[in-house]
Amino acid sequence: MKKKELQVVNSVEEMIEISSTLSGSSKIGFVPTMGYLHEGHLSLVKEAQKQTEIVIVSIFVNPTQFAPTEDLANYPRSFERDLKLLEELEVDYVFFPTEAQMYPADYKTYVNVEEIGTLLCGKTRPIHFRGVSTVVAKLVNITRADFMFMGKKDFQQIVILEQMLRDLNFSTKIIRCDIVREKDGLAMSSRNSYLSTDERRKALCLYQSLLLARKLFSEGIRKASVLKPHLKELIEANDGIIDYIEFADPSSLLSTEDLFSETRVLLAVKIGKTRLIDNMNLAE
Amino acid sequence: MKKKELQVVNSVEEMIEISSTLSGSSKIGFVPTMGYLHEGHLSLVKEAQKQTEIVIVSIFVNPTQFAPTEDLANYPRSFERDLKLLEELEVDYVFFPTEAQMYPADYKTYVNVEEIGTLLCGKTRPIHFRGVSTVVAKLVNITRADFMFMGKKDFQQIVILEQMLRDLNFSTKIIRCDIVREKDGLAMSSRNSYLSTDERRKALCLYQSLLLARKLFSEGIRKASVLKPHLKELIEANDGIIDYIEFADPSSLLSTEDLFSETRVLLAVKIGKTRLIDNMNLAE
Repeated sequence: MKKKELQVVNSVEEMIEISSTLSGSSKIGFVPTMGYLHEGHLSLVKEAQKQTEIVIVSIFVNPTQFAPTEDLANYPRSFERDLKLLEELEVDYVFFPTEAQMYPADYKTYVNVEEIGTLLCGKTRPIHFRGVSTVVAKLVNITRADFMFMGKKDFQQIVILEQMLRDLNFSTKIIRCDIVREKDGLAMSSRNSYLSTDERRKALCLYQSLLLARKLFSEGIRKASVLKPHLKELIEANDGIIDYIEFADPSSLLSTEDLFSETRVLLAVKIGKTRLIDNMNLAE
Repeated sequence: MKKKELQVVNSVEEMIEISSTLSGSSKIGFVPTMGYLHEGHLSLVKEAQKQTEIVIVSIFVNPTQFAPTEDLANYPRSFERDLKLLEELEVDYVFFPTEAQMYPADYKTYVNVEEIGTLLCGKTRPIHFRGVSTVVAKLVNITRADFMFMGKKDFQQIVILEQMLRDLNFSTKIIRCDIVREKDGLAMSSRNSYLSTDERRKALCLYQSLLLARKLFSEGIRKASVLKPHLKELIEANDGIIDYIEFADPSSLLSTEDLFSETRVLLAVKIGKTRLIDNMNLAE
């Protein structure tokens, strides 16, 4: 059977023309990515295909969400491979713009979500979420997305973008999709490709400490200050350098001492030079 | 002949529902205002009616563009009178939301255009244009405006909003409309209502100094530093307290010493306690 033709769109104007023509008659599903696709991304695409009629995947390593000290230049890229994977899935459009298309020389506008963007990952990455909010505001205008599919691995990102879309009265809704994990439990991430064999083994401590949090919660621990040292110990035993271990309200992302089943445990840990994140609620 | 029924919409959700239903089939023209309408506003409405099929006028005194020290609480309001004027013109929709509708308690998102927003009025009103960009991003999403009609009196505002709409890939285009003046030349402004009879007479110095700039330019003066003292003298002779007299590139709004016909002369002057602005190019 002949596969549906995938169309690669490089120009912002062309993408707007296509999406504005489609948006009246079809529900548009949008999956924003930075490429180097893994099963996590592909699960978002499949979910989009279930829920919408036209699926647009963007591949764009967004410079405004990287600080000068971060891994923009080295961020893994594999466009040809990505394209093949999306062709297999019969995606309708891949939006693959250049940096100059997205941020022309005289670019000046930034969208910022206050407070939530300064917590958790925002502490060590102060401009990160401003860059994310800005590029997503652009992308939903360019793709006319009715629904945007995002993985819960970037939990803070989802909370911030939901706030941004609501505050600015965009009609786009985010569909939160489950984290996709490797067989042993490591959350899928393009950055996992940075890990050596030894580091790959140690990286499992993020998942294991989330499971430990659940176990201790199920055994009756209801205070973050009591739970946290156990997670810290497990991570440090695996040479993980802790950026944060946080217990947070799932809506505001503010720290909480009292624990509930919906409390979100959020981790950022460096394994060698690679910064990994993961999160989980304390009980289903 | 029976006038077309004007519909007043107070709820954001209702306005979105109306505009998203209309936007496929009709060109939507939008005139954002803070109310207390004068002939300047009405000329924008008339222009919108010429160029589009559905006209939405918003009346909203936007709190995020006022600093705590500014005149938000005292800003003149006259909703019943405004409504009558818009009924006379057979406007289709008046969007008149409450503050709580536009900025719910947990509101957190701001749109900022860097650099241009710090020049001119941005020097004394540092959060002003961030508030303007934010509310306009919201309003174009709420009204699905194809064209937004704005007066050149707020020249810096137009330049900033054009940049914002372009940068964030909104499809809304701004139609720049000419400044409407009183018979004697004073640019129409809701804030003119603050002026006493004596101040009203003195306020004319803004317009007169713009005409003086044109006259001196036509006589061959091509340097801002030579022209400026003449304007300063005229304004101060009328007890005007100068916030700025600027000669600027009309695209970047950056100061320029060399003068061309398209160079914009921009003024902000306090007459008594009332801050007035006006602007003009040096030649048609």
